[in-house]
Amino acid sequence: MDIMNWSGLRLERSNGEALYLQLASALADAITCGEIGAAERLPSERELAARLGLSRTTAVNAYRELEARGLVRGYVGRGTFVCAGIEREGAPFAWRGKVALGAQRTVDPSMRTFSRYATDPRMISFAAGAPALDLFPIDAWEAATNRVLASAGHLAHAFGPTEGMPVLRTRIATRFGVAPGETLIVSGAQQGLDLIARCLLDPGDVVVMDRPGYLGAIQVFRSAGVHVIGWDIVRADPDELEDLVLRYRPKLLYTNPTFNNPTSRTLTLPERRDLLEVARRYRLPVIEDQTYREMWFSTPPPKTLLELDRQEGDGGIVIQVNTFSKVLAGGLRLGFVLADEAIVDQLALVKQRTDVSSATLVQLVVADLLASRDFDTHLERLRVEHLRRRNCLLDAVHSIQLRGSLVPSPTEGGIYLWCRLGQGIDARYLAQVAATSGVGIVNGDLFYPDAGDRSGADEVRLCFAAVHPDRMGEGMRRLEQAIGLARSNAGAFTSAGTIA
Amino acid sequence: MDIMNWSGLRLERSNGEALYLQLASALADAITCGEIGAAERLPSERELAARLGLSRTTAVNAYRELEARGLVRGYVGRGTFVCAGIEREGAPFAWRGKVALGAQRTVDPSMRTFSRYATDPRMISFAAGAPALDLFPIDAWEAATNRVLASAGHLAHAFGPTEGMPVLRTRIATRFGVAPGETLIVSGAQQGLDLIARCLLDPGDVVVMDRPGYLGAIQVFRSAGVHVIGWDIVRADPDELEDLVLRYRPKLLYTNPTFNNPTSRTLTLPERRDLLEVARRYRLPVIEDQTYREMWFSTPPPKTLLELDRQEGDGGIVIQVNTFSKVLAGGLRLGFVLADEAIVDQLALVKQRTDVSSATLVQLVVADLLASRDFDTHLERLRVEHLRRRNCLLDAVHSIQLRGSLVPSPTEGGIYLWCRLGQGIDARYLAQVAATSGVGIVNGDLFYPDAGDRSGADEVRLCFAAVHPDRMGEGMRRLEQAIGLARSNAGAFTSAGTIA
Repeated sequence: MDIMNWSGLRLERSNGEALYLQLASALADAITCGEIGAAERLPSERELAARLGLSRTTAVNAYRELEARGLVRGYVGRGTFVCAGIEREGAPFAWRGKVALGAQRTVDPSMRTFSRYATDPRMISFAAGAPALDLFPIDAWEAATNRVLASAGHLAHAFGPTEGMPVLRTRIATRFGVAPGETLIVSGAQQGLDLIARCLLDPGDVVVMDRPGYLGAIQVFRSAGVHVIGWDIVRADPDELEDLVLRYRPKLLYTNPTFNNPTSRTLTLPERRDLLEVARRYRLPVIEDQTYREMWFSTPPPKTLLELDRQEGDGGIVIQVNTFSKVLAGGLRLGFVLADEAIVDQLALVKQRTDVSSATLVQLVVADLLASRDFDTHLERLRVEHLRRRNCLLDAVHSIQLRGSLVPSPTEGGIYLWCRLGQGIDARYLAQVAATSGVGIVNGDLFYPDAGDRSGADEVRLCFAAVHPDRMGEGMRRLEQAIGLARSNAGAFTSAGTIA
Repeated sequence: MDIMNWSGLRLERSNGEALYLQLASALADAITCGEIGAAERLPSERELAARLGLSRTTAVNAYRELEARGLVRGYVGRGTFVCAGIEREGAPFAWRGKVALGAQRTVDPSMRTFSRYATDPRMISFAAGAPALDLFPIDAWEAATNRVLASAGHLAHAFGPTEGMPVLRTRIATRFGVAPGETLIVSGAQQGLDLIARCLLDPGDVVVMDRPGYLGAIQVFRSAGVHVIGWDIVRADPDELEDLVLRYRPKLLYTNPTFNNPTSRTLTLPERRDLLEVARRYRLPVIEDQTYREMWFSTPPPKTLLELDRQEGDGGIVIQVNTFSKVLAGGLRLGFVLADEAIVDQLALVKQRTDVSSATLVQLVVADLLASRDFDTHLERLRVEHLRRRNCLLDAVHSIQLRGSLVPSPTEGGIYLWCRLGQGIDARYLAQVAATSGVGIVNGDLFYPDAGDRSGADEVRLCFAAVHPDRMGEGMRRLEQAIGLARSNAGAFTSAGTIA
């Protein structure tokens, strides 16, 4: 509705109610009945006053009244906007009017939903990315915990330094060939990405990242208010990367080059060198996510970008994000960043006000584990078991009756099977039907970062590592049923252009 | 330097070097030698080109070259700025050119420094806020851990839901009289504040908070790019609060009303009701931090704002932030938010992309502890011991020779002694001298939120709970020595107007 030419507005100067309240009520009615839509910008107080022949004070007070009722929200320098509806019926306080513009940039609850699937006993979840948790080294963990508690006592629960406990930083530094000062302990890789975004990005900046790429990175970048541009990680063409850098002048490149989430694609050594050459030419910081690097089946992957940059270049252009979520367990919330000391220092300044420091005990226990053989023994067992589970899931996929409806890409490590759906099945719709059938999968469109990109509609991601082989057959039966349902509705879905 | 009238610039069209490189080098020299200062805004590419009679492309390329060298950074819509120096000598990659404007809003490392003091064995630290950690219920904790591991096995390490483990949410809900859906588990109160800021505040907004008030809150708000306005928490005048609300139209009020950090001031029941009345009148969300509430000595404090709002008002206007950091240990990184379900849901959406969820095991162990008598028994022991330590520190303060140089305010709970320094001693300078004497204290100016406010220069905060009574005498001797040094330099310091 064009409020400036709004014929429905009738204000009575003599009816005893203040004009600003009459104006506020009329606008409130228009918002409530939808005549003025959510997120619509209202005219400025000055414009409104001039148009209606009212004093500016009346317009100002009317907007304050609407703000107090939670219907609109003013943003400095941008104007006054109608609020989105987040309220349940009958809520005593209108929180929908209080949510910031920045928080509304991403409201996709997918990651939260996948976490819920993982703990829902009714679900067989191929959705959340997790290792074979039933192989978690319970005995070694308890032994390490006991050693730590015996030596540290109550100090195992004291606040630690923001950068992390020195013993863990030292062990990680040794393992990955960097200096202790070049490590930062974080509460999972997701926090590492969030800190990097807060440290290096301002709203309006551009980042280039894998396409398709990690959903959690897309969400971090979107919520930072930056433009996200995809670089085709499957083709991995350095000329395309250079074109994107020249065209968009990104502030950083994010890539997950080893057993990429979601495609399981691994950049070869020459591809890594090409990528670094482009990054160096334009002095473009590279954030490499090495979450899946240890999870190879038979052949270790090429050197990391961090290693290559330090061994073959000047070093310093790469920040590595890594985590214990896939090599031990996600519930530990323990990850680390490897980078130049100058940037570790900046990230720690941001972390200090975000959560002060990461939990102490888990750092000491993992440091103890890293010093023993137990950690590497566990990794070896995990590799064998993950390969078995990948094969088991491939068998199950091949055994389902609807041939051609689910075609997996090759996977030589990591924890994901990236599959193409047969014609006519929409991945988003299938994921919804699958959830109601008791099986969790992730629709591919979530991994495409560019705004308005319609790719991924025929792709899905299955995590093979977290489901016990005994349950994979049942999981595939449920998925087969869901595919049947989704296929039979495919025509209706496509023609209607919406999800039933 | 006014670059637009810069006589030092000489470009040679015929010397074989591209003009943009000559221009970049000249500007780089001016930046390096300080003629153009850090954070200075350069003229727009268009202006510069016009002024120097160059093509716009030359100016654009020169700025890109400077950006590539890490000397300037462009911000969409705001222009190009000279970077701040964060680089160590000889760093291979110029990270200082990559740090975002948003990250430069707060670079105060105080919180990080206090955490370091706490783990430095050479220091006696009255700086960081921590309880009597030596009373940590080690046996009860281990028993709870064993029960959890025996029943949950490897699932004690699985990813949990973003909102928190259901068993802990339920136990907290029962303890604090809310519904489980009205709880959100966070990684400490600091994360709770950070999530609230990201959810409710946009850059340019205003918040009102305690003056003096919690340093971590000041840092969160500053880094969110909002204007922070102080409300005098010691006077606690509702008319002043109303005036601030009318004048600045804040998006929220943050207060720490029980054993306030740093003053230990507790708002009385009538003061709480007055505060809520103002908040309700202007529909102003209230963030109440109840970190210290359980830490009373002899008399339990008045009802929380959340309780009062629900029992006497419509409810819903208060968000409570709370933590186990002071009642158990800071290194657990476990806190919680109590609020309307609508806002818990919004906060969880933000948390999902920040760190996915909080660690699982610690949630299960604390849930187990809360169900036993062990937790309340621990609280009772802690109250007795904290009172003993307050008395012990008061005795030590009174025993030092420089009478009148350190005058504490009354403290009936919490963990802090807020002290006024004698004339002529600058708190910031004293804190520096004290650190070199092996004793940690916090200078008062850090707790004053308003930009440019020079208050707190004669106040310091001492945490009495974390230092064992056996070491308090020695701590005070070191502080006495530092005060002597600071006083003897007071004249020189004051006249110079800077820290020696």
